[in-house]
Amino acid sequence: MKFDYYELLDVASQILIACGEEKTNAYVAAKSMVKADARGITTHGTYLLTPIYKRIQVNQLSLPTKATVVKDSGATAIVDGGDGLGAIAGQLALEIATEKAKTYGLSSVLIRNTNNVGSLAFYTEQAAKEGLIAIMSCNAAPAIAPWGGAEAFMGTNPVAISFYTGKELIFTLDMASSVVARGKIRKAERNREPIPDNWALDENGNPTTDPAAALKGTLLPIGGPKGSALALAVDILSGILPGGSHAPNLKSFHSPEGSTGVGASLILLSIERFLNIGEYVNTMEDYIASIKKVKKAKGFEEILIPGELEYRRELDSMKYGIELDNDAIDAINNLLKKTGSGIRLGE
Amino acid sequence: MKFDYYELLDVASQILIACGEEKTNAYVAAKSMVKADARGITTHGTYLLTPIYKRIQVNQLSLPTKATVVKDSGATAIVDGGDGLGAIAGQLALEIATEKAKTYGLSSVLIRNTNNVGSLAFYTEQAAKEGLIAIMSCNAAPAIAPWGGAEAFMGTNPVAISFYTGKELIFTLDMASSVVARGKIRKAERNREPIPDNWALDENGNPTTDPAAALKGTLLPIGGPKGSALALAVDILSGILPGGSHAPNLKSFHSPEGSTGVGASLILLSIERFLNIGEYVNTMEDYIASIKKVKKAKGFEEILIPGELEYRRELDSMKYGIELDNDAIDAINNLLKKTGSGIRLGE
Repeated sequence: MKFDYYELLDVASQILIACGEEKTNAYVAAKSMVKADARGITTHGTYLLTPIYKRIQVNQLSLPTKATVVKDSGATAIVDGGDGLGAIAGQLALEIATEKAKTYGLSSVLIRNTNNVGSLAFYTEQAAKEGLIAIMSCNAAPAIAPWGGAEAFMGTNPVAISFYTGKELIFTLDMASSVVARGKIRKAERNREPIPDNWALDENGNPTTDPAAALKGTLLPIGGPKGSALALAVDILSGILPGGSHAPNLKSFHSPEGSTGVGASLILLSIERFLNIGEYVNTMEDYIASIKKVKKAKGFEEILIPGELEYRRELDSMKYGIELDNDAIDAINNLLKKTGSGIRLGE
Repeated sequence: MKFDYYELLDVASQILIACGEEKTNAYVAAKSMVKADARGITTHGTYLLTPIYKRIQVNQLSLPTKATVVKDSGATAIVDGGDGLGAIAGQLALEIATEKAKTYGLSSVLIRNTNNVGSLAFYTEQAAKEGLIAIMSCNAAPAIAPWGGAEAFMGTNPVAISFYTGKELIFTLDMASSVVARGKIRKAERNREPIPDNWALDENGNPTTDPAAALKGTLLPIGGPKGSALALAVDILSGILPGGSHAPNLKSFHSPEGSTGVGASLILLSIERFLNIGEYVNTMEDYIASIKKVKKAKGFEEILIPGELEYRRELDSMKYGIELDNDAIDAINNLLKKTGSGIRLGE
């Protein structure tokens, strides 16, 4: 069933306000989720409202979010997320970093002590629209073993990089350090299907095609030792450097076993410090055109630039509504009921 | 056969001086190569002296290298490599970026119009030893197709990240965007061995286990669309942003078809802007100890942190000498002879 972007935004905001979030912040956090749903990134969508609600019930998320700047000097700063909503800490860091990058040509703002910051592209694309280049990463609960290990240590620690293109479409790389998300393995288990042997290791550190064994084990990093090193590097930059939590001490957002301790790092570069913006835009236009013209592999009719698939989905969602499956609708309606709202989705 | 580090450094410097390089620069470039050999990264070692010599013969490398700062403002700068040796442009950029990072807390220096900069770890580890965190990337001649394509467009565009650890050993991630280097496929072809089907695509964009077909096709990026997006992102940062050459216009260093047009990007962060250096070092010590304690996968007796294998090889090489095979020795002796030197390795 499809829902209007603004209807979902309103409903998600209401739930967050009922959970104790302040109005303006609730809107920002809701936007980060609804935009993720609109872009087909449902793992960072409104389904997160349920774990947020559950954490609130056991006092493991502090609302209203009190994100504060704990260190600020020239082109650098650290934001403490106050164990609140990740989107609020992320948005604050982004705003500070954007201003600093415009002043100094580049900036770095780190975040500590927050929770799930959602889709990194939410922040990096905002920066790109300001004529900046944005590099962002965040750490997460243990899921991957360091190369040679058979025990989850670091998270799937994603990295996103967005580039302004001069057009609405932003070039956005947004990749986890693991080959696939754990969700894909859960789905294979539900469907009783084997998984490819390069997705995960069992609990002894052997490659497995059995989803049940994989869920007891660890996710394989992209490129073997490369992805493992990348996940560790992200953890140092986003966890250790801001003085926050890091592997293997982070907790999953999905089970209330204490503060998650998530951290993130943001580096912004001002394009015009290096290249005239008009020349940059012209070059990017030619560049994207050249990518599109590359001879296609079998089964491909078109080459999309990174972020283009999500961009197209978002355009469609804004036009035709955002698709939510029945479980997602039930979950939201359940939260509306529990928080005393008279509204229901799809009624 | 094993050779003393300083003997090789002297020989490599002499060859570069005979090729027209200035003495101090020759030493820096020689060091980058000999250090790579010492670390077992022979693809960036003294074997590069041969393509350098060949390019000089056809006037496709300008020696002495005239790397110049073409833009400099606050925390950012651009270095033009003057189509000379990549190590000279890289070292100049590193020195400028190091000074800037110490002043501003972070810095970014980009390089354009140079050639093969060698192993990125050569630069990032120097910065790490100054208490900085270094992120570096460079672009290269077409080898990978954009995801969905069947034609080489961007290079294997590597990224390196080094972290100071408080000890001699530096944490260094240094990874190409492709699953393997083309050299590994050439080796399989020589040995008439099949290659795994996730290394390369044939010229129609289909996965292949035939090394000959793979060499006519493209290298597969790590993590499929992820590595493809990463290679493009590196190209924009290291090629387009400094106003330099970029995909698909770069040329291979190994065939003199014109200037290679290589570019690179360097971002340095000062640790102490974010965290007290003592606290950082203590945390890193605990962190590395925790990684080492992770349960081992079958076949692994020890977990190495990124960069540790190369570090150990370097220690061994300094102690027992650097191993060069007969082809490598012959190549160097051939260059010594051609450049009129009376010295020969291994005599």
